[in-house]
Amino acid sequence: MKLKNLIGDRFKEKPSDCVIDSHALMLRGAYMKNVANGIYSSYLPLRRIARKIEQIIREEMDLIDGQEVLFPVVLPAFLWQESGRYETVGNELVRFHDRNKSPLVLGMTHEEAAVSLVREYGQTYSKYPFMIYQIQTKFRDEARPRGGLIRVREFTMKDAYSFHTSQEDLEEYYMRCFRAYENIFSRVGIPEVISVASDSGMMGGNISHEFMLLADVGEDSIVICRECDYRANMEAAESIVLNKKDDVSEQLTLVHTPNIHTIEDVCIFLKSSEEKSCKAVVYQKNTDDSYVVLFIRGDLDVNETKLTNHLGCDIHPAVITKESGLNAGYIGPYNLSGNFTILFDKSLEHTNNLSCGANIEEYHYTGLDISRDIGDVVYNDFAKITEGGICPKCGKSSISISRGIEVGNIFQLGTKYTKAMNMQYIDNNGVSNYPIMGCYGIGVGRLAASVCEANHDEYGPIWPMSIAPWQVHICAVRSDNQEVKDYADKLYSELQEKGVEVIYDDRNVSAGVMFSDADLLGIPIRVIVSPRNMKDECCEIVSRDKSIHHKEALETVCSKVIELIK
Amino acid sequence: MKLKNLIGDRFKEKPSDCVIDSHALMLRGAYMKNVANGIYSSYLPLRRIARKIEQIIREEMDLIDGQEVLFPVVLPAFLWQESGRYETVGNELVRFHDRNKSPLVLGMTHEEAAVSLVREYGQTYSKYPFMIYQIQTKFRDEARPRGGLIRVREFTMKDAYSFHTSQEDLEEYYMRCFRAYENIFSRVGIPEVISVASDSGMMGGNISHEFMLLADVGEDSIVICRECDYRANMEAAESIVLNKKDDVSEQLTLVHTPNIHTIEDVCIFLKSSEEKSCKAVVYQKNTDDSYVVLFIRGDLDVNETKLTNHLGCDIHPAVITKESGLNAGYIGPYNLSGNFTILFDKSLEHTNNLSCGANIEEYHYTGLDISRDIGDVVYNDFAKITEGGICPKCGKSSISISRGIEVGNIFQLGTKYTKAMNMQYIDNNGVSNYPIMGCYGIGVGRLAASVCEANHDEYGPIWPMSIAPWQVHICAVRSDNQEVKDYADKLYSELQEKGVEVIYDDRNVSAGVMFSDADLLGIPIRVIVSPRNMKDECCEIVSRDKSIHHKEALETVCSKVIELIK
Repeated sequence: MKLKNLIGDRFKEKPSDCVIDSHALMLRGAYMKNVANGIYSSYLPLRRIARKIEQIIREEMDLIDGQEVLFPVVLPAFLWQESGRYETVGNELVRFHDRNKSPLVLGMTHEEAAVSLVREYGQTYSKYPFMIYQIQTKFRDEARPRGGLIRVREFTMKDAYSFHTSQEDLEEYYMRCFRAYENIFSRVGIPEVISVASDSGMMGGNISHEFMLLADVGEDSIVICRECDYRANMEAAESIVLNKKDDVSEQLTLVHTPNIHTIEDVCIFLKSSEEKSCKAVVYQKNTDDSYVVLFIRGDLDVNETKLTNHLGCDIHPAVITKESGLNAGYIGPYNLSGNFTILFDKSLEHTNNLSCGANIEEYHYTGLDISRDIGDVVYNDFAKITEGGICPKCGKSSISISRGIEVGNIFQLGTKYTKAMNMQYIDNNGVSNYPIMGCYGIGVGRLAASVCEANHDEYGPIWPMSIAPWQVHICAVRSDNQEVKDYADKLYSELQEKGVEVIYDDRNVSAGVMFSDADLLGIPIRVIVSPRNMKDECCEIVSRDKSIHHKEALETVCSKVIELIK
Repeated sequence: MKLKNLIGDRFKEKPSDCVIDSHALMLRGAYMKNVANGIYSSYLPLRRIARKIEQIIREEMDLIDGQEVLFPVVLPAFLWQESGRYETVGNELVRFHDRNKSPLVLGMTHEEAAVSLVREYGQTYSKYPFMIYQIQTKFRDEARPRGGLIRVREFTMKDAYSFHTSQEDLEEYYMRCFRAYENIFSRVGIPEVISVASDSGMMGGNISHEFMLLADVGEDSIVICRECDYRANMEAAESIVLNKKDDVSEQLTLVHTPNIHTIEDVCIFLKSSEEKSCKAVVYQKNTDDSYVVLFIRGDLDVNETKLTNHLGCDIHPAVITKESGLNAGYIGPYNLSGNFTILFDKSLEHTNNLSCGANIEEYHYTGLDISRDIGDVVYNDFAKITEGGICPKCGKSSISISRGIEVGNIFQLGTKYTKAMNMQYIDNNGVSNYPIMGCYGIGVGRLAASVCEANHDEYGPIWPMSIAPWQVHICAVRSDNQEVKDYADKLYSELQEKGVEVIYDDRNVSAGVMFSDADLLGIPIRVIVSPRNMKDECCEIVSRDKSIHHKEALETVCSKVIELIK
């Protein structure tokens, strides 16, 4: 391929709306173009990267006995009604009707389609286990697409579904897939990806893992123990708080706190610490807008995923009206009455002498002792784990929190979908059973962007050889020099004949323009042919990551390049 | 791959709703499964076939300097509003809204997306010509999906778009693409595909060709001249009718024709031939339901595509009400008044002594001479060409009509989209111009089904080596025989090590079951290992098309198979 024919405009300026580097570089290098919010078209370089990633994924899925299939992008609503998700999934699921008024959806995940494909096939135990996967377009109507390919609405995904007759068999396969994922991330050039325990969310099931590329621009908070191997997504990490009751429980005392609304201000006013306060955080259920009042230690934040899982429905921050019966800014657990769901976080267990709202305008209490003043309440874990917090595994105060980009996930789904959709098999005793499922996803575009995020400098991506759009970039500096042109042309043909993927820049432009374009394309090996090099009867061979920069005699350039590729 | 692990249920009975063989065989062989009307999931064998077809197409597109890109499946409506097609395209275009009420469509063709991707890139003449293509999912909400993969709603398509600065350049490229298409059809195993001139329909533009596989089950009627190389889709074929006026024009005479409504009955009643009658065919415009009355020679049929193109809008067969002013069954051109569009087909030019409706209940005229009785009217070509009709190219009465499946199409689009979407380039004189476009489509699934339609017997498909899901099928008949099992296992490993794609049937089932499954999978080369063969120290090597059936000594089976593949 000659660079002068490569479609797309490369440019120098960082687009103002790009907050992460991979997004800016992939626009600047003409890898892709925005079509609508969270929807992109790909130019040739990204298409080539994506196809190489897809092939690596395909090979690893085939190695663990996966069979490639293809599900439709457009699915009949009845499949999602069978599983129940047509009702439970929110706006991310695009619902529409065809010309005959039949309801359809755009596939955002394909558990239903997978069960429907193998429901008849998997009727006897002897067929198990088996796994099917596809690499296909998905559409998820995200509220806030961002970060280029990191969070989009339309994306290419590899999604796999395995079927088993026992939990042990699922777990064994789950680990095979886990290792296949490690291979994939390693082969595409980000071996540093770590796995973390995660929350299963709308997928259902219990055990699940996410594969995370640690990156400051990541959307996820990752909890990592410095002392043991505990790693979890913030959403899934248990928060452990060790409280010690003061020896003496003071009296519950009403205090006038004019114009004080936040827990910080209350603590300053009362000269107490936030750890000795009981904060109210109020939500409303999406289903019926009823209020959920959650009490938590003043210095901690609510992990909304845990709360959602506990409630079994989605929530949103409350709008507290006059009619609600809640006194915004002064809500406390003592004498709180009304039609609310009232919850207590574990961080309030074994505490006393707390300050809290008094449910009266401009008043707080001090000296709250929940067990004395309110009685027996149930404490659950709703808090976000904090930096330096206690590790749920080794018990040491050694938690550190990092940001990460989720590049893959694997779920043990259990029988959620097979039960709901009535997929059964006859076991070796003649008894009907529901198969146990696992599912395994990787987003292709997000993976490409993550590799770029992990491997770039200010001038462009540094693509690993395994997924680079081309393997070698020939720069013919001063292609108007006949000697340069002849040699570069010859090298281009020679390398192509040997099966090397070459992009060849023979434009009559300055070395500066040539090299900055080459940086943006990020090809691992660059061969510079120039009048000065020709005089020295050599070429410069430079690696994009700058680890190699040496001169090679003209006659051995081709073989040296092939050696470097290997 | 072991056949016993292949997901999907093969079966013997032809499904009752299958009217074409490829549809039945691809269901019976577990190539695919119906998900909804015109929507299928693919199992592994079809996925492998499709990927091989895609790769052949990709190679041929790359050879004519195409650059692979990827457009979104979900497109913002504003792109289709720019081109005007958001309004003009009917129900096939799925329109819906996202969570923010922004209107979106499902891509059914990507001219708009293509222009939008290269609009900025193609601003100077020096960038031209260029071509981009993608292989991607499309959705077209067909009113009547049918024939399995022949007419579906969701499908994978290769669509390509070329951009040029002159009509000559487009034509030159069009011919390159034409030849690339011939290569593709030849490589996938249907070299017998022919090209025909076609109607451009909703794509716009003038010159276009369809590539047709002649097949009785095809949806298209193909006009072929037996004497010259004229070939066209019925929709696009000019109808030539040579009339000779009778020497004497009789008088226009009103005749009572009670209870006679059709032109056939009128001719019988009047003892005249249909060729001497003037038939009325009535439509209504989709835009405003106004009536279109078309007069045509009684023995001919209307080509609705020509009529639609003439009118510039879609039509439907008329519902003739009492208020319409039309006398159903008695409509004729003489004394016809009302707010109708009245059209005359060329077949009525130079005629006299015609019978026709009198626009009076139960009355017809005889002796009509249009030029004498009605005056000057404009005649246009609205008729369907007929078997034995006159060839528009060589003028001989040598037209034959066949049925065909359209497996590809190519269009010269002109500036329709670049003008509508304001894509311009500066030419070498500094003048702004609209680029001229071509577009080129092939449906991957339909192509697979067409290959099956052209290459099958009653037992299954006969896949060509180039796209077969596997190259070799090993049948270990009586795999409970240790000698058979050992040899077949060894052959399986040996062939796989040599890079051969093998499906291996080592199930302990009867030879009958084994062979009927092998027939349904249609693998080109079959190796039969059996106790009897082992005794003779040989294997049977059989080709699926039955052209090869011979015994090969055990030690040379592997090399013989590899030789046959090549």
